Amino acid sequence: MRMSRLFLRTLRDDPADAEIDSHRLLLRAGCIRRLSSGIYAWLPVGQRVLAKVAQIVREEMDAAGAQEMTLPIAQPLELWRESGRDAAYGPLMFRLQDRKDTEFCLSPTAEEAITSIVAGEYSSYRDLPLNVYQINWKYRDELRPRFGLLRAREFLMKDAYSFHVDAEDLKRTYRDMYDAYTRVFERCGLTFRAVEGEAGEIGGDVNHEFMAVAAVGEDDFVWCKSCDYAANVEVARRGSQRVERVADRPARERLHTPDMPGIVAVAEHLGVGTGELLKCIAFDLDGQPAIALVPGDREVNPVALAQAVAPRTARLYDDDDFAAHPELAKGYIGPDAAGVALVVADPLVSEPRGWVTGANEVDHHVRDAVLGRDFEVHQWADLVAVVPGDPCPRCGSPLSVDRGIEVGQVFELGTKYAEALHALYTDEAGDQHPMVMGCYGIGISRIVTAVVEEHHDDDGITWPAALAPYAVHLLSLPGKGAAADEVRAAAERVYEELSDAGIDVLYDDRDASPGVKFADADLLGMPVRLTVGAKGVARGIVERRWRASGEQDELALDVVVAALS
Amino acid sequence: MRMSRLFLRTLRDDPADAEIDSHRLLLRAGCIRRLSSGIYAWLPVGQRVLAKVAQIVREEMDAAGAQEMTLPIAQPLELWRESGRDAAYGPLMFRLQDRKDTEFCLSPTAEEAITSIVAGEYSSYRDLPLNVYQINWKYRDELRPRFGLLRAREFLMKDAYSFHVDAEDLKRTYRDMYDAYTRVFERCGLTFRAVEGEAGEIGGDVNHEFMAVAAVGEDDFVWCKSCDYAANVEVARRGSQRVERVADRPARERLHTPDMPGIVAVAEHLGVGTGELLKCIAFDLDGQPAIALVPGDREVNPVALAQAVAPRTARLYDDDDFAAHPELAKGYIGPDAAGVALVVADPLVSEPRGWVTGANEVDHHVRDAVLGRDFEVHQWADLVAVVPGDPCPRCGSPLSVDRGIEVGQVFELGTKYAEALHALYTDEAGDQHPMVMGCYGIGISRIVTAVVEEHHDDDGITWPAALAPYAVHLLSLPGKGAAADEVRAAAERVYEELSDAGIDVLYDDRDASPGVKFADADLLGMPVRLTVGAKGVARGIVERRWRASGEQDELALDVVVAALS
Repeated sequence: MRMSRLFLRTLRDDPADAEIDSHRLLLRAGCIRRLSSGIYAWLPVGQRVLAKVAQIVREEMDAAGAQEMTLPIAQPLELWRESGRDAAYGPLMFRLQDRKDTEFCLSPTAEEAITSIVAGEYSSYRDLPLNVYQINWKYRDELRPRFGLLRAREFLMKDAYSFHVDAEDLKRTYRDMYDAYTRVFERCGLTFRAVEGEAGEIGGDVNHEFMAVAAVGEDDFVWCKSCDYAANVEVARRGSQRVERVADRPARERLHTPDMPGIVAVAEHLGVGTGELLKCIAFDLDGQPAIALVPGDREVNPVALAQAVAPRTARLYDDDDFAAHPELAKGYIGPDAAGVALVVADPLVSEPRGWVTGANEVDHHVRDAVLGRDFEVHQWADLVAVVPGDPCPRCGSPLSVDRGIEVGQVFELGTKYAEALHALYTDEAGDQHPMVMGCYGIGISRIVTAVVEEHHDDDGITWPAALAPYAVHLLSLPGKGAAADEVRAAAERVYEELSDAGIDVLYDDRDASPGVKFADADLLGMPVRLTVGAKGVARGIVERRWRASGEQDELALDVVVAALS
Repeated sequence: MRMSRLFLRTLRDDPADAEIDSHRLLLRAGCIRRLSSGIYAWLPVGQRVLAKVAQIVREEMDAAGAQEMTLPIAQPLELWRESGRDAAYGPLMFRLQDRKDTEFCLSPTAEEAITSIVAGEYSSYRDLPLNVYQINWKYRDELRPRFGLLRAREFLMKDAYSFHVDAEDLKRTYRDMYDAYTRVFERCGLTFRAVEGEAGEIGGDVNHEFMAVAAVGEDDFVWCKSCDYAANVEVARRGSQRVERVADRPARERLHTPDMPGIVAVAEHLGVGTGELLKCIAFDLDGQPAIALVPGDREVNPVALAQAVAPRTARLYDDDDFAAHPELAKGYIGPDAAGVALVVADPLVSEPRGWVTGANEVDHHVRDAVLGRDFEVHQWADLVAVVPGDPCPRCGSPLSVDRGIEVGQVFELGTKYAEALHALYTDEAGDQHPMVMGCYGIGISRIVTAVVEEHHDDDGITWPAALAPYAVHLLSLPGKGAAADEVRAAAERVYEELSDAGIDVLYDDRDASPGVKFADADLLGMPVRLTVGAKGVARGIVERRWRASGEQDELALDVVVAALS
């Protein structure tokens, strides 16, 4: 494609309304243009990326046995009433009426539509399983559309739906889709992890969110760079082993710590790190006082504590609780406090050392409290909130805590929609059951954002080869010298030869300065840049430069096609 | 694809609400399912056809130099107010409001959106011409959605828009698009003609409608099967030449024809054909009486008469006119009537013969009225409405008159949208002008309907190879005999081999009767059917049958792939 003909105007300056890198760069590189709040047009360069992502998704869905179809965007609101999601979505859903006042919505997703269609076609266990998908525009009337494609109101999504006789069969397809998703995001060049997530409006049981690591993401999550471990911060656990050895320390020593009920003040007063203190958190355990122990530089993860004591219920003490339990000296509780029904501790507390901790008396702490000598633990459980560098529970490598962009999600839906919309099947014995469903979404336009967030530098986008609008960006720099015509002719030849070889080339044949051409090439971010200039042509070479790494070399003019094929 | 896994249930019976063949067959063959009035889901088999049409369109647009992009479906109504089309579309347009009461419409087309975007990017004559297109869902809130995809409310359309410095440059692109459209419809296997049309809501000057010949079409048009002549019935003209010879006939004879003011009654009374009579139609020509002459078996085309006398105005006489002109004997007017300002005749009237015609006196006609002897003609003009069999004005072959489905349209838009939405360019002298635009639509989902209307028989669809969901429909007919396993194995082998060779095979591996399988193969309509049965396997052959022609032959099992590759 000749740039002189391409519908593209790059922007020199950052658009005022672009808050994140991907939004800024996609606008500057002429990939998208805003038509309304959260609603974008895809210009030719962006369209090519979008189509490539869609095609990767399509190939992996087909390979996973899903069948492509298309569901209407304008859907009867009646279907959404049957499932109860009309109310659940509320103002997030665009609604409209036709000329006969029949109510419609613009599909934010399509469980209702596909379930009602499958209910009309299939009725026997012999028909199942079924796995269908579509790639189509979806709509959410976001309260605050922002970040370009990240929180858009019109966005391209792949949504798949599977139908099964039972949960076991669903699990097989769920796994296949999970694997297909992994391949999709790998092919798109994303650093991502599948995080076991909680259900949103869709409802259902097991689900995984595929998070692309990105500072601008909406959710924190914990992940391991060495293996595929990943989890929401609430669910994440550090790898930890309990040590059984009792520390050999001097006898416990009582300290006067007036008006120091906090970890930091005590540590400062004693000149020790907060990690040398033992934090004793009082909580109510079904009506009885209990204590949770973690090192002083750690936070208790409330979800982890709740899971540790389940099916009993944990509730952290408030001032009323402390008032009702004067035997627990708020701010000065020790691990050996009297009258405590349960002492639960994180394995980090098993480290054989003497702890600074509360003396169970106001204005007093102790030094060298030793586990197994001065206090006991009734239950060991992972309690601490994971912090970066904690060991991975799976492989032991240091964990990372990052924000992520949700680029995909897989759900075990169960029978909610099948029941609401009467998608029933008859089993071998002739009995009717609701079909068991799964649903699987990928944000196609969201992937474009996530990819640019990960693949860019100060000068522009650095497209992964699989998504690059063009494989090669060819610059013609004829200059003003005597060789200008020769350079132009050489560039034209390279362009024709590469095009004939089936290579997608963006050819900067414009009458523009080298500075403009280099800047645009960096901004647009094709993987390989070829520069045809006067000095090179005189030597029979073109300069090749890899956009992402900045590496460069020279290619003889007559081997360019062979080298790039 | 194994039919045992394909999301498809064919229907034995015709759906009650399907009024036309394509609607009936697309439903029966499981290509589409209705979700709401005029709104359809595309099931996997239909999806494959839709995607193939879209891909053909895409390839031809790309080849014509148009650049693909995507414009939003949800468009700010404000843009449509600027062009005045908000009011022009009226209730035909779906409208909605977002949560902040901003008004949107669902795009029925996208002149406003693309013009506003181009206005933001381009500003110089150097930027032009530009030709961009999108393939996306469009919306019309039809008063009476019907005929399945033919008058749907949600439909897939390719819409292209071109921008130029002047009308001359527009004409070049217009011609390129016209040619690309011709290739698209040819590749889709449609019998079609480009008809010069009149502008609808879009406005503009020159335009052509591409009509696919179909009995269920919405518009009559005249076309030639031997050349590419085609025209609306109002504009169509027969090829005709005037004869200059005066007929050698007996002298004019006066006849008593009481109470016979009509052509048919006179012809019956005299025992002659209506074509032997001369029809004399009185009309008002800017206040003066005039007569139009055509043979008695022909109708005057009012548009043709109007064009013949332009810039004067013709208005056919009504009873008041006849009352004001008693010299014109209504029903008995002859070509030599007194006081007539103009006698205009179709060239058919120049045939050298004696005519039966009015005697200019009530209850009387004459026989053997001869042109040049008994009456004169002041002006010759094509006046008759074309009927099937008339000679083509271009090549002389017999013309056809048929109904057509409009599958595409190309428009010279002019500057209407560029002016309304400020898409201006600066010329070399620094003066600003509105860009000159063209727009070009193809109904992708409409093509599917038109193709099925043309390509079907009593048993089902007969897909053209380029659009067939699968190239080959392979039937396994194991039967109940001893060779059942052998047949199954042979069919599996053929399926695997064809698939490995990259041939799209629909494989009927279901546990169903031969009757069901044959009926489904006919209904679904893949171009080639391969049947693997016990007798054939015993002889080492499979039966091949072409769906459209019914021809069949046998292929040795070991050459199936080679024969079909």
